[in-house]
Amino acid sequence: MRNLEEKLRIARGERPAELLFKNANLVNVLSGEIHRTHVAVEDGRVIGLGDYDAKKVIDLAGAYLAPSLIDGHFHVESSMLTMPEFARAVVPHGTGAVVIDPHEYANVLGLDGIRYVLESSKNLSIDFFIMLPSCVPATRFETAGARLTADDLKLMIADKRIAGVAELMNYPGVYLGEESELAKIRAGKGKTIDGHAPGLTGRNLNAYVLAGIRSDHESTAVEEAREKLRLGLHLLLREGSTERNLATLLPLITSHNAINCSFATDDKLAGDLVTEGHIDHCVRKAIKMGMAPITALQIATINTARHYQLRNFGAIAPRCWADFVVFDDLQNFVVRQTYKKGILVADKGKYLAPEQAPVPQPRSTMNLRYDAAKDFEVRLNAAARIRVIEIVPNQIVTRQRIETPRTENGLVVSDVDRDILKLVVVERHRATGNVGVGFVRGFKLQAGALGSTVAHDAHNVVVVGTNDPDIARAIEELERMKGGQVAVEQGEVKAALALPIAGLVSDRPLEEVMKRIADLNAAAHALGCDLEAPFMSLSFLSLSPIPELKLTDQGLIDAVKMQPTSLFV
Amino acid sequence: MRNLEEKLRIARGERPAELLFKNANLVNVLSGEIHRTHVAVEDGRVIGLGDYDAKKVIDLAGAYLAPSLIDGHFHVESSMLTMPEFARAVVPHGTGAVVIDPHEYANVLGLDGIRYVLESSKNLSIDFFIMLPSCVPATRFETAGARLTADDLKLMIADKRIAGVAELMNYPGVYLGEESELAKIRAGKGKTIDGHAPGLTGRNLNAYVLAGIRSDHESTAVEEAREKLRLGLHLLLREGSTERNLATLLPLITSHNAINCSFATDDKLAGDLVTEGHIDHCVRKAIKMGMAPITALQIATINTARHYQLRNFGAIAPRCWADFVVFDDLQNFVVRQTYKKGILVADKGKYLAPEQAPVPQPRSTMNLRYDAAKDFEVRLNAAARIRVIEIVPNQIVTRQRIETPRTENGLVVSDVDRDILKLVVVERHRATGNVGVGFVRGFKLQAGALGSTVAHDAHNVVVVGTNDPDIARAIEELERMKGGQVAVEQGEVKAALALPIAGLVSDRPLEEVMKRIADLNAAAHALGCDLEAPFMSLSFLSLSPIPELKLTDQGLIDAVKMQPTSLFV
Repeated sequence: MRNLEEKLRIARGERPAELLFKNANLVNVLSGEIHRTHVAVEDGRVIGLGDYDAKKVIDLAGAYLAPSLIDGHFHVESSMLTMPEFARAVVPHGTGAVVIDPHEYANVLGLDGIRYVLESSKNLSIDFFIMLPSCVPATRFETAGARLTADDLKLMIADKRIAGVAELMNYPGVYLGEESELAKIRAGKGKTIDGHAPGLTGRNLNAYVLAGIRSDHESTAVEEAREKLRLGLHLLLREGSTERNLATLLPLITSHNAINCSFATDDKLAGDLVTEGHIDHCVRKAIKMGMAPITALQIATINTARHYQLRNFGAIAPRCWADFVVFDDLQNFVVRQTYKKGILVADKGKYLAPEQAPVPQPRSTMNLRYDAAKDFEVRLNAAARIRVIEIVPNQIVTRQRIETPRTENGLVVSDVDRDILKLVVVERHRATGNVGVGFVRGFKLQAGALGSTVAHDAHNVVVVGTNDPDIARAIEELERMKGGQVAVEQGEVKAALALPIAGLVSDRPLEEVMKRIADLNAAAHALGCDLEAPFMSLSFLSLSPIPELKLTDQGLIDAVKMQPTSLFV
Repeated sequence: MRNLEEKLRIARGERPAELLFKNANLVNVLSGEIHRTHVAVEDGRVIGLGDYDAKKVIDLAGAYLAPSLIDGHFHVESSMLTMPEFARAVVPHGTGAVVIDPHEYANVLGLDGIRYVLESSKNLSIDFFIMLPSCVPATRFETAGARLTADDLKLMIADKRIAGVAELMNYPGVYLGEESELAKIRAGKGKTIDGHAPGLTGRNLNAYVLAGIRSDHESTAVEEAREKLRLGLHLLLREGSTERNLATLLPLITSHNAINCSFATDDKLAGDLVTEGHIDHCVRKAIKMGMAPITALQIATINTARHYQLRNFGAIAPRCWADFVVFDDLQNFVVRQTYKKGILVADKGKYLAPEQAPVPQPRSTMNLRYDAAKDFEVRLNAAARIRVIEIVPNQIVTRQRIETPRTENGLVVSDVDRDILKLVVVERHRATGNVGVGFVRGFKLQAGALGSTVAHDAHNVVVVGTNDPDIARAIEELERMKGGQVAVEQGEVKAALALPIAGLVSDRPLEEVMKRIADLNAAAHALGCDLEAPFMSLSFLSLSPIPELKLTDQGLIDAVKMQPTSLFV
């Protein structure tokens, strides 16, 4: 600690503190009570509780003072915002620290992506702790921008802001004892090892835990979560944009086990963060559903700090960072002010932190090679029937349907009337020339095309369209923008969001990103699409580990049998 | 973990486990509930909960199965037992791990003492974790066998079984920011830093915590403990032979803060450990006083494991050590069986662990230089009145009294009638020739002398006697025994316990040690003493940091002003 002797003098009361938060109703997550006191702060840290002289006094007049909130698991790329703009979205909601898994950055940029995240998340009004992505690429059926092994993780694990190894999504690999996966766990020794095991139960779950996994955020039912809790997994109660498990899991949580729970968002869109909130939303919801406020706030703060060994975070006590939220109503938790290291960074919804000089963007990641005149053509085969990916709205699973396709001049083409549209995936990392072509039902486009370079997990270019020229036009525009999302009609760009940072993240301010996302959705709806989140649905059509049928740059993947399959049946 | 792939196979159920604890009522300290299940064990670890085949089945028929108990703070020397004999005393009470502060060994033997503790505590039926003594010597007014600086601590801190830095008893040194003390805290970075701050409150307590202290076991009142808890100190609820704070502090503990509490004994005699119990006694008492059993058992297990970062201890879940206790009654907690790494080590009070070959004893620590004919003489001074140490029964504080002494031939001598007896301290570590002589009230000896080489914290030779020849005889016998405790009458040894290991610990079996302690107490009582624990009272008369008046090898110490003082007033 910088200048400890001087701080001790202030703690002993021999010199006035920089700052005193007077008349606080302190939410003491350590003693598990709420009590009146004053909090002295010096050089960004809590120096003492009780009576102190200070150069500046902030009279809270009985308002509640709690530690800033911590998100236990978040993919910051899901907001499509840079770190500073993400902070702008959530700091007014009381967020003080976030444990992020830069899984998407790593899939595109490898270690460079993690380095960019480390660099671009410094000195902000949020502290970011980084879990090292453990599943890059997600499977061998898609071409990602990088491949991370245990040896790569070891290169970075010692960094102070690296909190451990991120969700080991290849859970069969872990419980089956595959050496590559066990090596990743070993690489994180002494730090936290996160898991991801939707629906895993019984003996295989025991093996998954035995291998060294320490958390899970995929429980969608009480019994599933109970079993995981009993086996020692820390439960991250997920409440994101689409995946919302908090209400379901709440009945499981008691004051006897809450220490093993955290709140997490996993994936949450910029708009949802701004309007609904972040971890404050979880606290509010939990209290409204009957959880004791002290328990909800422990889950939102100290419990997460403990799980990830975030020293001096998550509590208000001497030595801890002066990361506070001020609020007025315990039953309706709404953050009025947020302090970071003693500095007011948000007040009544307004973000106050100073601008930071932007860090250099990582290298361009749009390296395409394709022939628009030929690569998207599908010549009719004798089989005459094709596999169609069918979207399940608001879910990342898809269904496989067998259909007779529409044809023109011996070519299989989009069938607008039956909502069977051409889907194209173009590899964008290494200019391999890989192009996958398939068909999808669910978008209901009557014209035009929608394209995206956000396409889990390898984030190649994915485009759905009613005709090849618009598909080609969408890809051209994505290339021109160095990544992004686009809606095209008759060769004309109707709406677009450039995502020049890894093809995943905008370099524009929060408000502009929100506006452009709204425009994109409006454009997609104008083209006939009635999905709630057309571009999110599009972005999950390449996710090869998730059943039933997916399309990657390597072609159609049967994601039940985990093997490539053919378009024609 | 040894052979993880093989263990994963067993966890997946592909091969039978070594051992299955069937039909357990599992005290699950992680999920905070008690539930029926089976527990599979392989190679000393829990492999899985649930249905498993096993080579050997132990049917618990609905008995409770909990993790073995953990003592959060203990000076093992207080039992005067070697590590194996200490294990014999407490394993039948369900102890599976103990965090020890070898403060006495270190005061006598320095780093050699810690090395001996590490060596002699291996491969036993208890896991020992060691905190590095931080206050050797206790003050500059006594001559200890060693001096440990932060640099010494750094030499050992990386050892896997070193859990941190032990109680920083020099709490003013810490809150005043003395560099020597801050350096000791820095030496423990990343591990746990224990505190010791009786009665410390307000700003100085804030400073103590700010400096990096993480626990305290000295609270004797609820308000004191509440303040410490609020500031982030982990509370070790002490229940030793004499210091008993559990009942007092219990009203403070709730399920919202119990995570920050552990049970600890600090100092407990062999006899008390055997007859009353160890941490099981704390659990029993807490439950009887109304604490929820699950909370009491969490405090006795996982909470302590977490505070000291004892990985894979304190819970029953995959990867944890198979350290279990079996018991039958939640309301009257009596351990029936204790398992260590899956092996039954105690059954119905009977200790079953195999004998271990004893480790080599450390070097002899009895290096005396004194002249029995002259050094104990006190020549009358013109002042004619003397300072007398007055014992407060069952406490380590003393009072100072001013008395007119009895004299003979110009010498001040013991006055049996007024219970003012001569007290002698002879330095024993480096043959300095230091001899302190004073007078004490409280022993009520009518004849003879009592001597001990256990004499906190420097552990020099301390003898109280009615006459010089018996004092000299006691010292001779202590030298002959290479340390110990002795009762002498008219030149004859009436009872003795040899403590050849550092002058602190017996090399004899538990039963013999208990017998000899009983004999010593009986002998002291036969000589007229009515103190409950004469040798314990004797052993605290040299403890110079504790008020009001103490005698060390350097003479009388005014322990209020913390300076040497004179016998004559």
